[in-house]
Amino acid sequence: MAQAAVDRIVTNFEQKLIMIRRHLHQNPELSNEEFETSAAIRAWLEEAGIAILDFPLETGVIAEVKGKGDGPTIAFRADIDALPIQEETDLPFASKVPGKMHACGHDFHTASILGAAYLVKQKEETLNGTVRFIFQPAEENGGGALQVIKSGALEGVQAVFGMHNKPDLPVGTIGIKPGALMASVDGFKIEVEGVGTHAAVPDNGIDPIVTAAHIVTALQTIVSRNISSLHNAVVSVSSMHSGSTWNVIPSKAVLEGTVRTFQEEVRKQIPAHIRRVIEGVAAAYGANVSLHWYAGPPSVQNDEELTKLSIQVAQKAGLEVVKPAPSPAGEDFAFYQEKIPGSFVFMGTSGTKEWHHPAFTVDERALQSSAHFFAVLAEEALNKLGGNR
Amino acid sequence: MAQAAVDRIVTNFEQKLIMIRRHLHQNPELSNEEFETSAAIRAWLEEAGIAILDFPLETGVIAEVKGKGDGPTIAFRADIDALPIQEETDLPFASKVPGKMHACGHDFHTASILGAAYLVKQKEETLNGTVRFIFQPAEENGGGALQVIKSGALEGVQAVFGMHNKPDLPVGTIGIKPGALMASVDGFKIEVEGVGTHAAVPDNGIDPIVTAAHIVTALQTIVSRNISSLHNAVVSVSSMHSGSTWNVIPSKAVLEGTVRTFQEEVRKQIPAHIRRVIEGVAAAYGANVSLHWYAGPPSVQNDEELTKLSIQVAQKAGLEVVKPAPSPAGEDFAFYQEKIPGSFVFMGTSGTKEWHHPAFTVDERALQSSAHFFAVLAEEALNKLGGNR
Amino acid sequence: MAQAAVDRIVTNFEQKLIMIRRHLHQNPELSNEEFETSAAIRAWLEEAGIAILDFPLETGVIAEVKGKGDGPTIAFRADIDALPIQEETDLPFASKVPGKMHACGHDFHTASILGAAYLVKQKEETLNGTVRFIFQPAEENGGGALQVIKSGALEGVQAVFGMHNKPDLPVGTIGIKPGALMASVDGFKIEVEGVGTHAAVPDNGIDPIVTAAHIVTALQTIVSRNISSLHNAVVSVSSMHSGSTWNVIPSKAVLEGTVRTFQEEVRKQIPAHIRRVIEGVAAAYGANVSLHWYAGPPSVQNDEELTKLSIQVAQKAGLEVVKPAPSPAGEDFAFYQEKIPGSFVFMGTSGTKEWHHPAFTVDERALQSSAHFFAVLAEEALNKLGGNR
Amino acid sequence: MAQAAVDRIVTNFEQKLIMIRRHLHQNPELSNEEFETSAAIRAWLEEAGIAILDFPLETGVIAEVKGKGDGPTIAFRADIDALPIQEETDLPFASKVPGKMHACGHDFHTASILGAAYLVKQKEETLNGTVRFIFQPAEENGGGALQVIKSGALEGVQAVFGMHNKPDLPVGTIGIKPGALMASVDGFKIEVEGVGTHAAVPDNGIDPIVTAAHIVTALQTIVSRNISSLHNAVVSVSSMHSGSTWNVIPSKAVLEGTVRTFQEEVRKQIPAHIRRVIEGVAAAYGANVSLHWYAGPPSVQNDEELTKLSIQVAQKAGLEVVKPAPSPAGEDFAFYQEKIPGSFVFMGTSGTKEWHHPAFTVDERALQSSAHFFAVLAEEALNKLGGNR
Repeated sequence: MAQAAVDRIVTNFEQKLIMIRRHLHQNPELSNEEFETSAAIRAWLEEAGIAILDFPLETGVIAEVKGKGDGPTIAFRADIDALPIQEETDLPFASKVPGKMHACGHDFHTASILGAAYLVKQKEETLNGTVRFIFQPAEENGGGALQVIKSGALEGVQAVFGMHNKPDLPVGTIGIKPGALMASVDGFKIEVEGVGTHAAVPDNGIDPIVTAAHIVTALQTIVSRNISSLHNAVVSVSSMHSGSTWNVIPSKAVLEGTVRTFQEEVRKQIPAHIRRVIEGVAAAYGANVSLHWYAGPPSVQNDEELTKLSIQVAQKAGLEVVKPAPSPAGEDFAFYQEKIPGSFVFMGTSGTKEWHHPAFTVDERALQSSAHFFAVLAEEALNKLGGNR
Repeated sequence: MAQAAVDRIVTNFEQKLIMIRRHLHQNPELSNEEFETSAAIRAWLEEAGIAILDFPLETGVIAEVKGKGDGPTIAFRADIDALPIQEETDLPFASKVPGKMHACGHDFHTASILGAAYLVKQKEETLNGTVRFIFQPAEENGGGALQVIKSGALEGVQAVFGMHNKPDLPVGTIGIKPGALMASVDGFKIEVEGVGTHAAVPDNGIDPIVTAAHIVTALQTIVSRNISSLHNAVVSVSSMHSGSTWNVIPSKAVLEGTVRTFQEEVRKQIPAHIRRVIEGVAAAYGANVSLHWYAGPPSVQNDEELTKLSIQVAQKAGLEVVKPAPSPAGEDFAFYQEKIPGSFVFMGTSGTKEWHHPAFTVDERALQSSAHFFAVLAEEALNKLGGNR
Repeated sequence: MAQAAVDRIVTNFEQKLIMIRRHLHQNPELSNEEFETSAAIRAWLEEAGIAILDFPLETGVIAEVKGKGDGPTIAFRADIDALPIQEETDLPFASKVPGKMHACGHDFHTASILGAAYLVKQKEETLNGTVRFIFQPAEENGGGALQVIKSGALEGVQAVFGMHNKPDLPVGTIGIKPGALMASVDGFKIEVEGVGTHAAVPDNGIDPIVTAAHIVTALQTIVSRNISSLHNAVVSVSSMHSGSTWNVIPSKAVLEGTVRTFQEEVRKQIPAHIRRVIEGVAAAYGANVSLHWYAGPPSVQNDEELTKLSIQVAQKAGLEVVKPAPSPAGEDFAFYQEKIPGSFVFMGTSGTKEWHHPAFTVDERALQSSAHFFAVLAEEALNKLGGNR
Repeated sequence: MAQAAVDRIVTNFEQKLIMIRRHLHQNPELSNEEFETSAAIRAWLEEAGIAILDFPLETGVIAEVKGKGDGPTIAFRADIDALPIQEETDLPFASKVPGKMHACGHDFHTASILGAAYLVKQKEETLNGTVRFIFQPAEENGGGALQVIKSGALEGVQAVFGMHNKPDLPVGTIGIKPGALMASVDGFKIEVEGVGTHAAVPDNGIDPIVTAAHIVTALQTIVSRNISSLHNAVVSVSSMHSGSTWNVIPSKAVLEGTVRTFQEEVRKQIPAHIRRVIEGVAAAYGANVSLHWYAGPPSVQNDEELTKLSIQVAQKAGLEVVKPAPSPAGEDFAFYQEKIPGSFVFMGTSGTKEWHHPAFTVDERALQSSAHFFAVLAEEALNKLGGNR
């Protein structure tokens, strides 16, 4: 009976996926608030008879298709949350929620992986193992993958696959490469404590603005002097605030910023470099300084073997494989890869705008081919991991 | 009859001045809002039969005592406005207006000069000229002196005198020195225009934070390299704002600050130095920059002869004369000195807190001696300017 | 007859190569002074009957082994010059010339390629084309490759191969990778012109030291802000000189440095970045500045196909192939690669010290295997280029 | 008999002083090498019968004229050394010694004070005390005054007077002011120890050039932020040296400079400020740093009473008294003022070039009036200090 339901869905496959994607697009929910989204995903899974697993998650859905015998388990992950951005498109299915938008295409990811789930369900009988579907919440704020891991939903899984749409790749192409694909993402806040004074008598205080300014210039030397030119790192101060009027030197300055890199050993060194620089400069001016570190996901590092397999599957599935430049953006998919081998791909979506742009779009023709890619990948990966090849 | 009224006032002189000062202290009004204060001053003047002159001023009062014949005219100036500060004293006559306070002692200035007016009125018959009393509004925001000058109230005046209370001088002392006494006060705003970008791809933008930081460090060289060590100047950046989040490099940074100096020739050079520095540094980073200049009062420069006279009068009036260090704070009294010779003194008030402190106080014993000093000064200055000596 | 001579040489091959290498090591000559070295190379070639070609070169030798018919021509290049370094080893064959030393192992390169020439000569009859041997002068000062190119010795050559010894790779291994292998090497000099003055009156001058210091700090932002983190660049100021005494501010400061990168598009941008930074900072201080650019070799970029071939040959020749990290040092071999496809390898020599160290050594067991590698490469490359495979 | 000799000398006074000054000018001797100069001074003193005192000095001469009874003792000091500068004038009496020149006018000081000694000797009988004449060596290297003090020649002296010629004051004028007249002069050397490395791999070292550059920019904040704008200070880095070639990052950078101020309390603070700045910045980059301090003379601080007397004497002697701006140059006369009250004047000499210029000159008409001024000063100072007035 379930099989019949799936068959029916797959008959009008493209329309179904478009419908799903548009429904999600019209009803965006922010990180950790994906209650309606999760309910809809559950409904679409149940409609096809796909089993929903019970893990302790506030939002998000874990589903599974079990094939034959005691084969291995692999997971496909889609992220489901939207962004606090006001949509600026003329689409008939534009966001109905003011100030919220699927401006990073997670609606596309969700619909594609649901599509893959339908196709996998259809072939359930011949499947040499189990495929888990992780509809992960809260990717945008970096917390969702850790919630999923903590819930236990990754236990027993031997390999994990995921994707992100890529506006600058045309539909029909897929970007795959082994090794570093997306950067680690850490944040920092630097608080400089000086001593406030009237701006006419700077010698009565300790100027946090001059101190902070020298910190900013000195931080540039981490990338220019301390990191090998063979490695890749970005240290950006992206906000700087001090003072409230023109004639009083304030007591405090606050800097915020982010660090990106593709090498974990580089990533580990940078907080110490920042600490050395800011403590030295602050001491040079007699100020105090503190560093707050917000560790985000590590870099996405694609497993050699799984990535080779992805390339073969993509070619088999009729996609043109390109080798993408690594992206300095981050992905909490990397947290899964800290636990188990994984591979992440960039799916071409012929977008007209970059991620997070208010007029961001995806070309829906990519839905079907994405679903198809993951369905074939499921078969091949289970075969390979199960030793059938 | 007027004479009798004045005599009556002077009989209980100290109580009268204390009453006036406390009334003002309880009812502080901010710059350009001194309507009740002006009405009260007018009433206290009229009570003594002192003539009120009609000049086009929204707030503030101009009065005059005319002595004999066609002698010269001098002016005494008191400032009358309060500050947007919440008083933190336990005085029984503390401010009744939340968030407003006479925290710079202009109530003391007003009461003292009113006292001087009473004493001068008493001696009207023997006065060798005319004494004008300028109760000036809006000193705190730097606009009041210019309003008075524009009103015409300074026309025909040959010399102007003023004072500021000085908490760190004891009652009974007076700080007088020729030449520079208080600094010029200019303000500036620097706007740096870069190109915003994701903090992970700084090479796609022009970083206004790095540019602004280098501007701050480079501005230090104006004082350290471009101004003679024989001169005095302060260039302070007192606020710096850029960016709103940790992962986006903003397009703009804004710096604000102030310049203080005691030499007009130095003052004139500094905007060009600032412009040179900021335009060069901005060009170094490919950013644009603009400078907004807010010219305030020049430095208070005391006339040699009038100041010598002030010292003689102070000694005659039983005050101990000390030579004060110049103050890097400013005074719009300097605008009068651009027009006519003037001299400004620091009256000792045994204060426990500095100007603008929420617990600022003056010792009221200084009221009577201040009034007396200015009354004697009126006589002597008119004699001197009139050639009677 | 020539064949017999070669056979004789190859009979005691290792001793011959060691003898050659030690002779060169004992008699080092600096760039463009390799007269004795060239004469010796000519003698060793003539001894084996290898033809010496006549190209207009002061120093250096071009030789050739012509095989069958009208096959393609490839070239092997060895550099032959030594360094102005005083040797600090206890080798019995240490440099006999005070202050000069083969501290970069060019003696090893020369002996190895001579060895390859002998082996190629032996197989002359079966060779499907021509192998040219370029014993290039003046690699250390970056001028030699351009001299060779200018002489016409590269004309008609379809592919060029070269090597550098690598102390940190053991004998028996070879480092080969496609794409960027060694960095581009450019030099610069920045002259800052201020106005000298007594150090007690900085306001009478324009301080070139403060200007130069700000230039150094600002130059750090080229790598930290202007170059993509996906690219590789080094901008180093390595010398800074200004002033001659403690109490006079000088009029001039001079900075020198170098730029390294593996991407030609990055290399092309950097002079403009440097110019922008130094002109902006100099303007900020009212100083003048000039930039002198010393363009060196571009980055060594290994041809994909030739490098694939090198890997196959190395494996066939019994060497272990490793993928080396690119080296930020430079090689004027890159000038040949601007003209024709080429591939450059790192030959493992189990050295105890790095290049240019006074105690630099190579393990002579690498001589024979290096010669063998190039001999096989000659055969295979000619076959491949000639279409025999 | 001595009286007759002096009378003879004074008869042709101007010629005598010009002869002395020109002899000295033609025979300049550097600091601590003033052997011939000292011998000549002794001869000129003995010729007039003036007593030469025996103090343990290598060079320099101490003489004395004793007047009546047990009056006080005052001292006049002239400095006698020349500079390592090649004279570039066309004077018939230009320096005969290549590379040495009286380019600071110490020949003028010596001749003037010798003239004063002659005039004082003439009035010996009526002199109410003793006048000591200090012909001090080694002013230019800052060591001479300390040698004189150590020799005991200042013991028993109650007041000391000295002068410097002033090219920008015309002959007939004299610059006198109480308080600060010339700056304190301290020197410093900063050594930055990093870790050298190839310029292509800065991450292998610690860059002393970037560290030194940030030190230079940070040192600017001592004057701009830490010293009150009411005080005066100069902190100049006047030499900066690091590195010897374009492609090696050196291990060390050396900065030298000087500090000038007119306030002893400011002077005392500055080494701690410098130490704080350089240690902080060095720590920020992981470098080591050391500070070497070369304490020179404090500021010349003229005694109020003695200076008032100098003004009266100058007016009596027919000189026009002007109030000079303090000079940021230094004078080791200040070391005497640390011991006893003193006053130092600027004698107008209508010079065409500044001190230390190769074409520096003095107008010899100032010789006679200088001698006269000091002769009158001797009488008046002894009267005043002896209580005769």
